[in-house]
Amino acid sequence: MSKYMSMENLKFILHDYINISQLCQYPRYQDFDKDSFDILLDSNKDFADKELFPVFREMDEQEAHYADGTIKVHPVVGKMMKSSGENGFIGGIFDHEDGGMQLPHVMHVANGHIAECANNHVTGYPGLTTGAANLIASFGSQEVKDMFLPQMIAGQWAGTMCLTEPQAGSSLSDITSSAKKNADGSYKIAGQKIFISGGDHEYCENFVHLFLARIEGAPAGTKGISLFAVPKMRKEADGNLVSNDVVTAADFPKMGQKGYCTTHLVFGENDNCVGWLVGQENKGLKHMFQMMNAARIEVGCTALSMATAAYYASLQYAQERPQGRRIMNSGEKDIAAGQTLIINHPDVRRMLLLQKAITEGGIALTMLAAYYQDLSHAGPEKDRAKYHGILEFLTPIVKTYGSEMGQVSVSNGLQILGGYGFCSEFVLQQYYRDIRITTIYEGTTGIQSLDLLGRKVVMNNGEALKDVTKLMIHAIKDAEKYDDLAPFAQKLKEASKELEQTVMHLVGIAMQGKHEEFIADATLFMEMISTVIIAWQWLSMATKAKEYAITANPTFTNEFYEDKIHTMKFYFTYELPKIKGLKETLLSPELLTIAKENSKVLV
Amino acid sequence: MSKYMSMENLKFILHDYINISQLCQYPRYQDFDKDSFDILLDSNKDFADKELFPVFREMDEQEAHYADGTIKVHPVVGKMMKSSGENGFIGGIFDHEDGGMQLPHVMHVANGHIAECANNHVTGYPGLTTGAANLIASFGSQEVKDMFLPQMIAGQWAGTMCLTEPQAGSSLSDITSSAKKNADGSYKIAGQKIFISGGDHEYCENFVHLFLARIEGAPAGTKGISLFAVPKMRKEADGNLVSNDVVTAADFPKMGQKGYCTTHLVFGENDNCVGWLVGQENKGLKHMFQMMNAARIEVGCTALSMATAAYYASLQYAQERPQGRRIMNSGEKDIAAGQTLIINHPDVRRMLLLQKAITEGGIALTMLAAYYQDLSHAGPEKDRAKYHGILEFLTPIVKTYGSEMGQVSVSNGLQILGGYGFCSEFVLQQYYRDIRITTIYEGTTGIQSLDLLGRKVVMNNGEALKDVTKLMIHAIKDAEKYDDLAPFAQKLKEASKELEQTVMHLVGIAMQGKHEEFIADATLFMEMISTVIIAWQWLSMATKAKEYAITANPTFTNEFYEDKIHTMKFYFTYELPKIKGLKETLLSPELLTIAKENSKVLV
Repeated sequence: MSKYMSMENLKFILHDYINISQLCQYPRYQDFDKDSFDILLDSNKDFADKELFPVFREMDEQEAHYADGTIKVHPVVGKMMKSSGENGFIGGIFDHEDGGMQLPHVMHVANGHIAECANNHVTGYPGLTTGAANLIASFGSQEVKDMFLPQMIAGQWAGTMCLTEPQAGSSLSDITSSAKKNADGSYKIAGQKIFISGGDHEYCENFVHLFLARIEGAPAGTKGISLFAVPKMRKEADGNLVSNDVVTAADFPKMGQKGYCTTHLVFGENDNCVGWLVGQENKGLKHMFQMMNAARIEVGCTALSMATAAYYASLQYAQERPQGRRIMNSGEKDIAAGQTLIINHPDVRRMLLLQKAITEGGIALTMLAAYYQDLSHAGPEKDRAKYHGILEFLTPIVKTYGSEMGQVSVSNGLQILGGYGFCSEFVLQQYYRDIRITTIYEGTTGIQSLDLLGRKVVMNNGEALKDVTKLMIHAIKDAEKYDDLAPFAQKLKEASKELEQTVMHLVGIAMQGKHEEFIADATLFMEMISTVIIAWQWLSMATKAKEYAITANPTFTNEFYEDKIHTMKFYFTYELPKIKGLKETLLSPELLTIAKENSKVLV
Repeated sequence: MSKYMSMENLKFILHDYINISQLCQYPRYQDFDKDSFDILLDSNKDFADKELFPVFREMDEQEAHYADGTIKVHPVVGKMMKSSGENGFIGGIFDHEDGGMQLPHVMHVANGHIAECANNHVTGYPGLTTGAANLIASFGSQEVKDMFLPQMIAGQWAGTMCLTEPQAGSSLSDITSSAKKNADGSYKIAGQKIFISGGDHEYCENFVHLFLARIEGAPAGTKGISLFAVPKMRKEADGNLVSNDVVTAADFPKMGQKGYCTTHLVFGENDNCVGWLVGQENKGLKHMFQMMNAARIEVGCTALSMATAAYYASLQYAQERPQGRRIMNSGEKDIAAGQTLIINHPDVRRMLLLQKAITEGGIALTMLAAYYQDLSHAGPEKDRAKYHGILEFLTPIVKTYGSEMGQVSVSNGLQILGGYGFCSEFVLQQYYRDIRITTIYEGTTGIQSLDLLGRKVVMNNGEALKDVTKLMIHAIKDAEKYDDLAPFAQKLKEASKELEQTVMHLVGIAMQGKHEEFIADATLFMEMISTVIIAWQWLSMATKAKEYAITANPTFTNEFYEDKIHTMKFYFTYELPKIKGLKETLLSPELLTIAKENSKVLV
């Protein structure tokens, strides 16, 4: 079987870099230790090897499609849901009392990474079930929990998130789905939802849709949205499941992730759709953001996982394909010599190192964010708010760096194969098509960037950014201890200053009350800060690699650690300098993207 | 019908910016004038509207495929070949004596742009026929010309270029196809060629393959390669066409450009394949480069044409799709107000302006390069070498900027549609898949960049770069006359200096005899110089827009000219600053992509 991910790298990040076993000191996680974490990871890898990776290409070729009122999907979806119920992939993170294992979230994300590298078409089905069940666990009444949680955690019933409506798109304040209270406290639901991932198929007996709607008379905008659990089938008093008037209208055919269905659902067409309120009335969007934030981390992780698998596919090709010769110092090539492997051409190595830098740097940040989720959930009480702030700050960055730079990474992988990269016979083109959705899922890059600059940077007087900066300064100090890392620590220090100046400039615009101008280039700010944040990840990883390499008892080979330090240098040399240009653009006084008034033309 | 390109923009570039009618002063082009150029362009647009654009999506859905020993393609291919023969799309650029119209090459490329915007799956068929026929016209004996040219120019016989072999890929010195001289002066041909675009189908009665092979006993490497015309069917003494032992073995299924077949051809399997030498023995690669260079311009143009069509598709969506509200200066949104069109969101405008900046800047450079081709071919004798040098210098830039930044452009177009951009129902995903091949066709980005830095920058003591720099300085002086353009002229002056410093640094490395180090980051150098060269195009276009806008008799609307100036400012603010980071990387002393020795690992 081809290599599609690196367990060594994942364990290095979890144990040597982040040291997630620190979590086991907190009561919530006391059942676990490093060994039990590794056993879980290894058994997930084994399942991914045997069941998920082998059908990855099939799921693209036999795409999900609408037929006979439901969606036909690959049979591995059934296997995945069943296995995810059995092995805790769905319910692992839940409280014991809700049927969970109290597994740290970072382990859930790490397990997800393994499965997503193997087969990104199948992981969303259990993934959304976890998210939906978690919303019910967090905000549902005991009645609602009892109604749905056991079957969801067991993987018998699937969960979805139902936000998007045709007329509203990303503008959630414009959703019109409705809810009217019934005498028994339940609600009558009506509305249409589109782009519902995993919304229907034949391998689960029921689907529980976490559904945003307006209760009759609710205020306009996002402050009038409530959250409901709306099942496809509802349980009658006799325990039988009957139709809850949720109709699958279509599946959207698409360019990639073809095995992961994207449905159009119609609720209450026959006035017979019942939903149960989850959480408080009119607080639905706030509640939904718990699932949404987890999904954002998940999307970033999925994108990086696709890019990881693409990286290893292109690395293998580069290690096996002879072509051309190296250029000699004379500028000539020795045509009498045999061909060299393409990994020896500098431009191919550059594309390989770029992929390694993006994917491993991104995965490190993803795991770090998930770790802060655990600290904010079950760490020391006094620090939870701080950790939560760091998590909130990093979430849009994980989502956007993973998806945007993951696309760059996959494209470089495809390029290494030359003409074969474009051919259906090779897998790179599938990753290329699959990953393109990830900058759109769960809030586009534009939306993430508005969230980062417009909310997260300024929240609590910039507290989260200050906390993140402190972490960076800490990493810089650790790296400065080593002579060969010190110059790079210095570069990160300078980059951090450039970033600070840029933030001050932008916040100054906001303080002048020019809010549209303040957020106009949020996407460029996102690119700039992401580039710095990933540099921090690389510097930290290189420091740990250094530490472990010089101990008498290193976990990995010396080559593994040298690779890490080399890739850090590559990142600092080839990626970090981009912030110079971004800063110049962000500081430019030209206002070129702000429409004069409601305008249909560009200028 | 949806807008897929702008005739206004094309005519502005051809007439107002470049002023191609200047060519009509030279004897070769004296039959033409501005009006006859426009009539040709308009009639091509009419054909593209009626025949090409309407079947663009069909060609993706009904992909080319191998069946019954040939390739099944969409019937529009037959229509296109016939029409291209009749209207001079194939033979227009040829000499009168070879049956051509002596049309300027820039007009051929402009006509190609129109057709490629309408339907990039079909244009390669006549395009390669032009290139193959042109090789025969330039280097073939009268016998070979008579044998092939009339039918090729008429579109009855198609042409291809046969370079790639499975074991050689981009490394042409390793091709092994063979040629053995027959008694009558023809050659017996044998070998396999892969990735042959337009290599076979049922709508042409014959295919003339321009084929690279080694004559028995030829020297090793590229200096032992000769060029042959090898038809699928050869004419017997009685005038009948009989099989020439060229077998179509397969068609490569691929991610995009599915209507444009990519074949695997087997020559001489039954020892009965005849070819005719074109040009001199062992000079085949040199001859082939005439076709290759034209094809490189063509690929850049095709990529930019796909990106142009994608731009207009996303612009239309942005002008029609209401979603969300603008942010008010308070930082709030007015939820009582109706939704705004998404073109009014700054991030969407940014993505539209980026597409406009890339595509129109790239098309301007493409037409300029083609114009220098005409000057080098038929301009004043004494300047032809200089113009040829400029053309040679710009060719890899046209190819690479168009294909690399064209991909960025299309991706931004797709992003504007959100979830719909990923759905098969909308066309953006098709452009996204189609354009991905263009950084691979006719020499990958890596190969183009080696050609640019390793050959073109240093040839004739850097003469071509000096000539290009002079053109830029000229453009800067023209722009400085206008107060509002002067600051941007200054920016280009500074960018040109940064570029010069970078070139000096790199050439210094070459002069130390460190050739592999010199070219290791050629791809980054390509990105840097392309970014500056396109800034030059924008400054020149803005200057012309300014000139025309203030004359009493402007060709276009005032909005058209304002758009140009605004987009120039956008390019200088959002794109040009990238060179800062690129320069820093190119000047870095770290050597991170050079393999230690023949190595199978990264570090």
